[in-house]
Amino acid sequence: MDAEEFRKRGKEMVDYIADYLSSIDKRRPLADVEPGYIKELVRNEAPVEPDSWEDLMKDIEPIIMKGTTHWHSPHFHAYFPTGNSFPGILGDMLSDAIGCIGFSWASGPSCTELEVVVMNWLGKMLSLPPEFLFSPNGHGGGVIQSTASEVTLTCLLGARTKFIRQIKGDNPNMEDGVIMSKLVCYCSDQAHSSVEKAGLVGAVKLRILESDAKGSFRGATLETAIKTDKANGLVPFFVCATLGTTGCCAFDNIKELGPICEREGIWLHIDAAYAGSSFICPEFRPLLDGVEFAMSFNFNPHKWLQVNFDCSALWVKDSRLLAEAFVVDPLYLKHENEGAMPDYRHWHIPLGRRFRSLKLWFVLRLFGQRKLQQSIVKDVNLAKEFEKLVRADTRFEVTSEVKMALVCFKLKGTNEKNEKLLKLINDDGRIHIVPSTMKGTYYLRFAICASTTTIDHVIFAWNVIQELANKV
Amino acid sequence: MDAEEFRKRGKEMVDYIADYLSSIDKRRPLADVEPGYIKELVRNEAPVEPDSWEDLMKDIEPIIMKGTTHWHSPHFHAYFPTGNSFPGILGDMLSDAIGCIGFSWASGPSCTELEVVVMNWLGKMLSLPPEFLFSPNGHGGGVIQSTASEVTLTCLLGARTKFIRQIKGDNPNMEDGVIMSKLVCYCSDQAHSSVEKAGLVGAVKLRILESDAKGSFRGATLETAIKTDKANGLVPFFVCATLGTTGCCAFDNIKELGPICEREGIWLHIDAAYAGSSFICPEFRPLLDGVEFAMSFNFNPHKWLQVNFDCSALWVKDSRLLAEAFVVDPLYLKHENEGAMPDYRHWHIPLGRRFRSLKLWFVLRLFGQRKLQQSIVKDVNLAKEFEKLVRADTRFEVTSEVKMALVCFKLKGTNEKNEKLLKLINDDGRIHIVPSTMKGTYYLRFAICASTTTIDHVIFAWNVIQELANKV
Repeated sequence: MDAEEFRKRGKEMVDYIADYLSSIDKRRPLADVEPGYIKELVRNEAPVEPDSWEDLMKDIEPIIMKGTTHWHSPHFHAYFPTGNSFPGILGDMLSDAIGCIGFSWASGPSCTELEVVVMNWLGKMLSLPPEFLFSPNGHGGGVIQSTASEVTLTCLLGARTKFIRQIKGDNPNMEDGVIMSKLVCYCSDQAHSSVEKAGLVGAVKLRILESDAKGSFRGATLETAIKTDKANGLVPFFVCATLGTTGCCAFDNIKELGPICEREGIWLHIDAAYAGSSFICPEFRPLLDGVEFAMSFNFNPHKWLQVNFDCSALWVKDSRLLAEAFVVDPLYLKHENEGAMPDYRHWHIPLGRRFRSLKLWFVLRLFGQRKLQQSIVKDVNLAKEFEKLVRADTRFEVTSEVKMALVCFKLKGTNEKNEKLLKLINDDGRIHIVPSTMKGTYYLRFAICASTTTIDHVIFAWNVIQELANKV
Repeated sequence: MDAEEFRKRGKEMVDYIADYLSSIDKRRPLADVEPGYIKELVRNEAPVEPDSWEDLMKDIEPIIMKGTTHWHSPHFHAYFPTGNSFPGILGDMLSDAIGCIGFSWASGPSCTELEVVVMNWLGKMLSLPPEFLFSPNGHGGGVIQSTASEVTLTCLLGARTKFIRQIKGDNPNMEDGVIMSKLVCYCSDQAHSSVEKAGLVGAVKLRILESDAKGSFRGATLETAIKTDKANGLVPFFVCATLGTTGCCAFDNIKELGPICEREGIWLHIDAAYAGSSFICPEFRPLLDGVEFAMSFNFNPHKWLQVNFDCSALWVKDSRLLAEAFVVDPLYLKHENEGAMPDYRHWHIPLGRRFRSLKLWFVLRLFGQRKLQQSIVKDVNLAKEFEKLVRADTRFEVTSEVKMALVCFKLKGTNEKNEKLLKLINDDGRIHIVPSTMKGTYYLRFAICASTTTIDHVIFAWNVIQELANKV
């Protein structure tokens, strides 16, 4: 395909995308296929001679779309939102065309420097403490990673290296593995499974502590666990607190956890993957109070800030602590970086990296801060409208406080009743939601996902749920 | 931006991309900016009200392109190629539009199933042993990850878990950390820095063993190291062999390393990030002989197979061993997966994942196998032409055998002379190359990178190098 054919096919693809996204509400949000459906539809081997563009495009609907779960349908209310916007797509198109691999400053100066710029922009939008931002004399700054899972692991590894070095200072002959067998990190039972994955990869002990009745990780719980572990000769080194848990969007109490971590010298990491986007709104920013105690803070603009996946934003107060986890001789690094731009390859596990800041830059400039704020507020208000509908039907109850754009609810009564309702809803196929459990109670999660969701979609969804509840 | 405006702006962007890529040879391949250049060109904060599309596009040339290193210029001969093609861009546009997060089969059936299909297609193109492919009764299969760095780490973690479990079987009370302090992995001094990173993250001992005069990791070297380590009570568990090293594209001798790993029960991982694409050509496939001894094999279609970053292809003989590294209770997994499709979230560190198989599918279908083979052969032939030019000039020498599309060469004489030549070349700016060193000798690397590179570009580059060599 030469440039002239690309002009033609690219424009056809733009139209296909515009058509797809503007009529997505007509599609069944959850794919209606069985595992293995694709096998009968494709060849067993790649073609030797090229297929035509027409042949390929003819396959998109019956092969790809047939098995696609449409995350950007306004009838999709499962999981949490994943960002998607026309500005984001356009920025990513440019990123693909440039196709630089910005592992060092020289390999893509604009790739590194635009990331520095937009991460400071975004940090200011969140009113992060200035230590988290790039500044001429500081060591803080932000980086775009792929997922919150990788970010949690990266920060845990930074903390692990810091503690291994500290302990080796006093015990130079102790093996790293032996030190690691004493390290303990903490999260609550509402934390994302990626914390457990990070603990496994990092090969450190993880205490999954009990959250309070609202699903919040509290200071007293952490305090007790630390005391017990220290009494047993273990070394508490890392706490992962969540603002906006996956299950019910609970907020850990970082104003309680923070001072404890500070006193004990523990690395506090805050994962606000979903809820973080809301902190650009003055009315929600108080939920982030306490971030000043953290060593690292993360949220995913690719969730609720209209940026296409992948764009997970991490800020750290001291980026040298990340680099030390990944390079054998950090002294060399300190010299190389002095006064210059960050070498982002030392801030995470991958070496290669895409020009991801472009899509964020496109989104921030083409929406502007105010419209992004309005979009968040709109979604939260829609969730509150849904909450009202649930509360007005005495068969149902709301199981958690609605702070963001997620409503957790259930039919009064047994788990079995609610499992049955969920199955009816997803088999019906007009809307898609997923369940969760907390402290043994099974409930349904209704999230406002697509940015195009309106009150009509919310009412539509509620009517579907009510109708199917009649059958339970 | 609504769908109608996206139709307009998307088509403008398609034209911008077509213009950019079809006139890229007019641009200086290496950006001519100083660190921090962007600061004077951008605002300190994100705009509150939206910028117009025109304002944004007006900034692309003076802010973004000014500082871009143009990896797809036919005058770019640095590092290794990174894939880029119009079919790849088109597939990625569709992926962005669908924007599903395929962490489980249900969250994106087409996302999971197309990946299964194209990874089998690609595995067959490489004539991988059938144990590496998905089959109804086997445990093998392929997965797309982001980078070879992540893949190496993932496989090292799989091997680590396997060995910890084995050793715990005999010593149930031994701490994981204590076991890990006995585990040793091996690579050569020509292996990529990501192996060292994986060793640090995995917190295991890494032996970086001496390669032979050609930069190849040999069996006898590994044999000796294993013997010494075992005599000291350590446990060899993982070998990372490279086919096509970054420095000089050397090939480790997997036919020697493989049987040793098999005998010792060591997990052999093969990293063919760059050279792997060539194995789709019958004339280069013999270089992969010995892969049957490996537990895992990786190459990057996003390097030399015209697929846009990120698309790193990993095949394993037993995917259960990856999952066991990442989940606390693999028994649960075994049940869930039985007979169904893979749950790719358990094959790697990230939970979220893009629909990356689309761009690979577009590339495989719109090029077809034969054209992809021809493109590889063309690049290797161009490198051989460059080699001839170097050999015809008695001031120069070729420092490594030219097997792929990389020529390593130097001016006869001191490292200093060659450092000076490199600086002259990159300051001059008509072409871009990077250096490397092996066993104390500094040399220049000339890689065929852009798929549009022709013999004229090669001759042009050689003329530039000869002209500047006159000044040394």
